[in-house]
Amino acid sequence: MPAAALNPLITRLSPPPIPAVQAWGRSYDGSLGPLIDLSQAVPGYPPHPALLQWLGEAAASLAYTNYGPIEGEMVLREAYAAHVCELYGAGIGADNIHITSGCNQAFICAAMAVAAAGDTILMTNPYYFNHETSLAMLGIKTGLVACNSAGGFIPTVEAIVEALVPGVRALALVTPNNPTGAIYPPDRLKAVFDVCKRNGIWLILDETYRDFLPEHYGAPHGLLSDAQWQEHLIQLYSFSKSFCIPGHRLGAITASARVVEEIAKIMDNLQICAPRAAQGAVAQALPGLAEWRAGNRHEIEVRAQALRDVMAGLNDWKLEAVGAYFAFVRHPFKARPSTEVAEHLAKRAGILSVPGQYFGEGQDQFLRFAFANANAATITQLHGRMLGFSI
Amino acid sequence: MPAAALNPLITRLSPPPIPAVQAWGRSYDGSLGPLIDLSQAVPGYPPHPALLQWLGEAAASLAYTNYGPIEGEMVLREAYAAHVCELYGAGIGADNIHITSGCNQAFICAAMAVAAAGDTILMTNPYYFNHETSLAMLGIKTGLVACNSAGGFIPTVEAIVEALVPGVRALALVTPNNPTGAIYPPDRLKAVFDVCKRNGIWLILDETYRDFLPEHYGAPHGLLSDAQWQEHLIQLYSFSKSFCIPGHRLGAITASARVVEEIAKIMDNLQICAPRAAQGAVAQALPGLAEWRAGNRHEIEVRAQALRDVMAGLNDWKLEAVGAYFAFVRHPFKARPSTEVAEHLAKRAGILSVPGQYFGEGQDQFLRFAFANANAATITQLHGRMLGFSI
Repeated sequence: MPAAALNPLITRLSPPPIPAVQAWGRSYDGSLGPLIDLSQAVPGYPPHPALLQWLGEAAASLAYTNYGPIEGEMVLREAYAAHVCELYGAGIGADNIHITSGCNQAFICAAMAVAAAGDTILMTNPYYFNHETSLAMLGIKTGLVACNSAGGFIPTVEAIVEALVPGVRALALVTPNNPTGAIYPPDRLKAVFDVCKRNGIWLILDETYRDFLPEHYGAPHGLLSDAQWQEHLIQLYSFSKSFCIPGHRLGAITASARVVEEIAKIMDNLQICAPRAAQGAVAQALPGLAEWRAGNRHEIEVRAQALRDVMAGLNDWKLEAVGAYFAFVRHPFKARPSTEVAEHLAKRAGILSVPGQYFGEGQDQFLRFAFANANAATITQLHGRMLGFSI
Repeated sequence: MPAAALNPLITRLSPPPIPAVQAWGRSYDGSLGPLIDLSQAVPGYPPHPALLQWLGEAAASLAYTNYGPIEGEMVLREAYAAHVCELYGAGIGADNIHITSGCNQAFICAAMAVAAAGDTILMTNPYYFNHETSLAMLGIKTGLVACNSAGGFIPTVEAIVEALVPGVRALALVTPNNPTGAIYPPDRLKAVFDVCKRNGIWLILDETYRDFLPEHYGAPHGLLSDAQWQEHLIQLYSFSKSFCIPGHRLGAITASARVVEEIAKIMDNLQICAPRAAQGAVAQALPGLAEWRAGNRHEIEVRAQALRDVMAGLNDWKLEAVGAYFAFVRHPFKARPSTEVAEHLAKRAGILSVPGQYFGEGQDQFLRFAFANANAATITQLHGRMLGFSI
């Protein structure tokens, strides 16, 4: 009998990298102190107690047991729209918001809304690995916009224009960037958006780490005030990181009401609606915990500075970029693949990082440190562990 | 400037039908008593208070705020594997289980695991509309296996063989069926599975409504005891319906450990992991509320009998099929599209149903009644409202 076949687009995908990295951490013997986990981005402080209380109340309530609106709970769409208006000085409404079950799902929805199998979406290199695998599993081709350390890993207009080939439907960018931490300045984003408009493509802008921008940074960009933003911009966001609740899976898309309608068709198929109880709780937290979130921005800056100090004392390692949540670090073992370096660093020095290789071709000389996971005192310990490390 | 284009696979999709149907209900003036909502399948009784308590405790807990395992919480995978073993007399383990955010997502995962854009998956006609739109949005072609009222809407081996064309990767069936309510007998499922094995295709078996089978029905089928089940079967299930918590979005896939690994790659992209707190709560409820769920099966039978009694007294309407949750009803207005009949029935008689047209070509003479939404007393009221109804 003939065996039933699996989809080669799926079997060809590498297994998810984070569990493999975490397995390295479990092999560390603890001899240098507790494992310092800088792998998956998870703030190293707990959610606010009030949010836990709201989550519990909402989940225990009959009000959220039934199906909800596909596009999301109106209380959350309204609260998030108000937040976006305030942050960007933009004039959007609840009908510009679609709630998703996390920002990976927001990316899938945005990609499917604009591209089918055979179309092309541009990403940067390095890229966030789940963006690459998401497009690959959908049969969407990817084109790469090269970024380098000399340019602070910020894509140039020239590199984007060079990557534009027939069949490109969108450019997907992440700012603050995963994996490099690079913060794309508003004027560069404006110039990039103008390229997208001129070429009739979408800009999918993933701002998962927006809430970790430096204090007093101001609006991340002015694109939502562009007269044509609705025809060319789909913006993504995650509630997971800044509220410290990735396990509750909650993200949001900001787009034209027309695009939100199309995304509702996709979401209806993917899972009818995002889980409801957490939506109710986060609708309370968005205004209610604004001050707590602002305080965390300061804390993340303290951590970034601690990392800069550590790296300044390590001559053979180089901090190539450091930003809102991540740092991209050049390791000193030029001849060795980043997977090998990261594995040894985890098992012998108790430092968990993600190998550059997972973020694209030519990234083998780098490791990604999710430095914001650890407090400054812990980050300071990196110095001793890395100083004596060799493979 | 050229406008950025949307994916025609998405723009071509009809908007999700349930919100449109619900809008008809809001136009009913209440003159015949409260609206009787037999549209979206939502049990008309609340979840067990203990489950609400467990949901609340889990959501308020720090234990579920972080990312969880992609495949699902081990406590739930183990509890559900034990449940499947007991129900089917099968010998499966936790590594055969993948938790998803609802059963629509389980279907998407199963479909993507076995088919890419351009491949074909067979469905019955009538079909569950989200299966059709899910495949369409992925660019997966669909082939239809005709079912008819004379055959109780149960697909025959002959009809399946006839639909097998080159490029078919899977047959997707729903039992107990949505929309007809038909319960596919174990021997027919065995014969159908043999066809799948002989032809090297997958059987994707959606058993969302399994917990509403008649009392003492026994195992729904013996496929999980087939020596080759792992090479040809992917089984889907929903916790939403039997625990009355669709708003918490929780489903499960049973498949070979190999297929579970492939689905983990898909889920990692779709949303990293299903929301965690509800998984913890349902792991407690699976053994803890077994008796409550069994009691509900009896209640659903009472409701099915009430519908049979009502329909027996309506000469011009015909109950063509009635099963675990749904009934497929032939309306008497042969010349009128089912959308028109359902709209009038909603607005003037206060009975919300889903037009047959939404379930496939040639289904315009039918309406789907999710009879299990309403208790027997409410179902009895259908008689008066339908007796005098005409358009």
